[in-house]
Amino acid sequence: MGSLQAEKTITGWAARDSTGVLSPYTYTLRQTGAEDVVIKVLFCGVCHTDLHQTRNDLGMSKYPMVPGHEVVGEVVEVGAAVSRFAVGDTVGAGVIVGCCRECTPCKANVEQYCNKKIWSYNDVYSDGNPTQGGFASAMVVDQKFLVKIPSGLAPEQAAPLLCAGVTVYSPLKHFGLMASGLRGGILGLGGVGHMGVKFAKALGHHVTVISSSDRKRAEAIDHLGADAYLVSSDEAAIAAAVDSLDYIINTIPVFHPLEPYLPLLKLDGKLILLGVINQPLQFLTPMVMLGRKSITGSFIGSMQETQEMLEFCVEKGLTSTIEMVKMEYVNEAMKRLEHNDVRYRFVVDVAGSNLDALN
Amino acid sequence: MGSLQAEKTITGWAARDSTGVLSPYTYTLRQTGAEDVVIKVLFCGVCHTDLHQTRNDLGMSKYPMVPGHEVVGEVVEVGAAVSRFAVGDTVGAGVIVGCCRECTPCKANVEQYCNKKIWSYNDVYSDGNPTQGGFASAMVVDQKFLVKIPSGLAPEQAAPLLCAGVTVYSPLKHFGLMASGLRGGILGLGGVGHMGVKFAKALGHHVTVISSSDRKRAEAIDHLGADAYLVSSDEAAIAAAVDSLDYIINTIPVFHPLEPYLPLLKLDGKLILLGVINQPLQFLTPMVMLGRKSITGSFIGSMQETQEMLEFCVEKGLTSTIEMVKMEYVNEAMKRLEHNDVRYRFVVDVAGSNLDALN
Repeated sequence: MGSLQAEKTITGWAARDSTGVLSPYTYTLRQTGAEDVVIKVLFCGVCHTDLHQTRNDLGMSKYPMVPGHEVVGEVVEVGAAVSRFAVGDTVGAGVIVGCCRECTPCKANVEQYCNKKIWSYNDVYSDGNPTQGGFASAMVVDQKFLVKIPSGLAPEQAAPLLCAGVTVYSPLKHFGLMASGLRGGILGLGGVGHMGVKFAKALGHHVTVISSSDRKRAEAIDHLGADAYLVSSDEAAIAAAVDSLDYIINTIPVFHPLEPYLPLLKLDGKLILLGVINQPLQFLTPMVMLGRKSITGSFIGSMQETQEMLEFCVEKGLTSTIEMVKMEYVNEAMKRLEHNDVRYRFVVDVAGSNLDALN
Repeated sequence: MGSLQAEKTITGWAARDSTGVLSPYTYTLRQTGAEDVVIKVLFCGVCHTDLHQTRNDLGMSKYPMVPGHEVVGEVVEVGAAVSRFAVGDTVGAGVIVGCCRECTPCKANVEQYCNKKIWSYNDVYSDGNPTQGGFASAMVVDQKFLVKIPSGLAPEQAAPLLCAGVTVYSPLKHFGLMASGLRGGILGLGGVGHMGVKFAKALGHHVTVISSSDRKRAEAIDHLGADAYLVSSDEAAIAAAVDSLDYIINTIPVFHPLEPYLPLLKLDGKLILLGVINQPLQFLTPMVMLGRKSITGSFIGSMQETQEMLEFCVEKGLTSTIEMVKMEYVNEAMKRLEHNDVRYRFVVDVAGSNLDALN
């Protein structure tokens, strides 16, 4: 297992200010604690939240900041009390790397709702040091916050599942939307939305992709296998689709009106918000009351759900659709992501980018 | 049974324009159809919606309009096919007097969500004539839309249960909130809100009344038996109550911010909107997502739930708290209702107001 006491100096790519521009940054990993697992990062997905955080869109950013929370790595060292993982395992880390373990959500194994959760980056770990994410050659992660990547999944394609995938899987499960034959809408066709289409189709749902323009019709229908495509400004098409959906998964991460979408829901239908938006959204109360509809939301998923979702992907033969890039391209990738110019998730080939060559 | 063919000329009190001022108005009831029940109106509650409708706040009012949809009456005639009611029965009519009977909600016995439902007043009946409500000496109602008032309930106190009562009972039941030991919040202490406190207490919940001022503290705690009282502008008290409620029943019928209330909900908590508000409400998506909370709503209740709710009231010894008035006072009552100056529901003693004396 090597020395558990040594601190390791590694290189990540960090934002230094709210321009969000990433560049090489050298820092040390904490000493490997009894419950800790050291991973060599293989791949890391690029999430829209990385954009928000590196650019301080939410007003809570601290620099230097190494982003990345869709991390697939290889175990290179384990602490004395680590029982679930061994050197050589392929593992995944996601959005959260700590929680209080004592509150009601923690005790119910939905630690993502713990008020004392620790974020993978831009947070302070229990040792008082900043957390840094997966755009780095290595990470140290408590074993509770790792999942096994099943052998049936390509590690680079597994990366986006660790945030985007579980973000859409968790509400489908929690809100009772796993039964086949349901009719679902997917609003927004980015990293989360494209996984929504794939999961919903795998569950046997009739899937309508809803978009502000006609631009993605062909890819939604032909590439992702959606059953229908609806342009939100097409009043006739919207009117024809009123009262037709059991749920809408709304992945849009910027301000948008809800009025076109609420009427599409059937009685007891659910509008499930997955995008953090820094301006208030609006709705009229009769649109909710007359139909007993719910505007609700969900935040990533638990570690247990993440593991289950990975098994579900193997069982159903699902993967994410990615564009793999080297770390040198990451600033360009972030710019393209901002303009939704990616089908559907950038994944950084971290190991292949040879970050520690600078050390 | 008397002649089923005769049209009856009766007197109601109608609004003639958007001033909403009510005055005597003479009109005819339809011929009694096979499924119809003719009732002599005994009592009729005054709901906030009556204010909205008589004053055209929702932009859909047609005049002359006889409001009133919390109607308790005595059966005086029944159609040939009426099996559920007999002359002399005390019955109740509510917000809806017709539905399509063919759609999914109708087939699921939640006819209040039928898109072709017919409102008790300010609507057009299946015969093409305007519907008129319970501020009148008599009504003709299809037997499907009547409930029996149990003998254990005073008819005047039963009246507000037919809208205000079932409006709060239905979501408690539908959203799985009947278990004892839950912690609920009631926002707004009017006709619906006061029944919310009574039902929630009868279910064994810990009940917090939430209000914009301290004005109703004594009545909430001492008179209605609430366990706690929270002023929404009291930041310290609000902070202390964060993450404490399983649900909030929000009865406020005018625009208000949701920001103070969403944080009070626990993980998976529900904000249940019962007030029709003609301006959009706002919320921030993280307030919903981080806690998987729901903003939802509900509209009255089904006929089945209404009957069940009345039996529940008998079983638990619940009644509404009313101020009884004669029809001559109704315009003053509407003004006082507008300023929330009633504990907690006006009920018009319709039979005692001798409306047909003018005929």
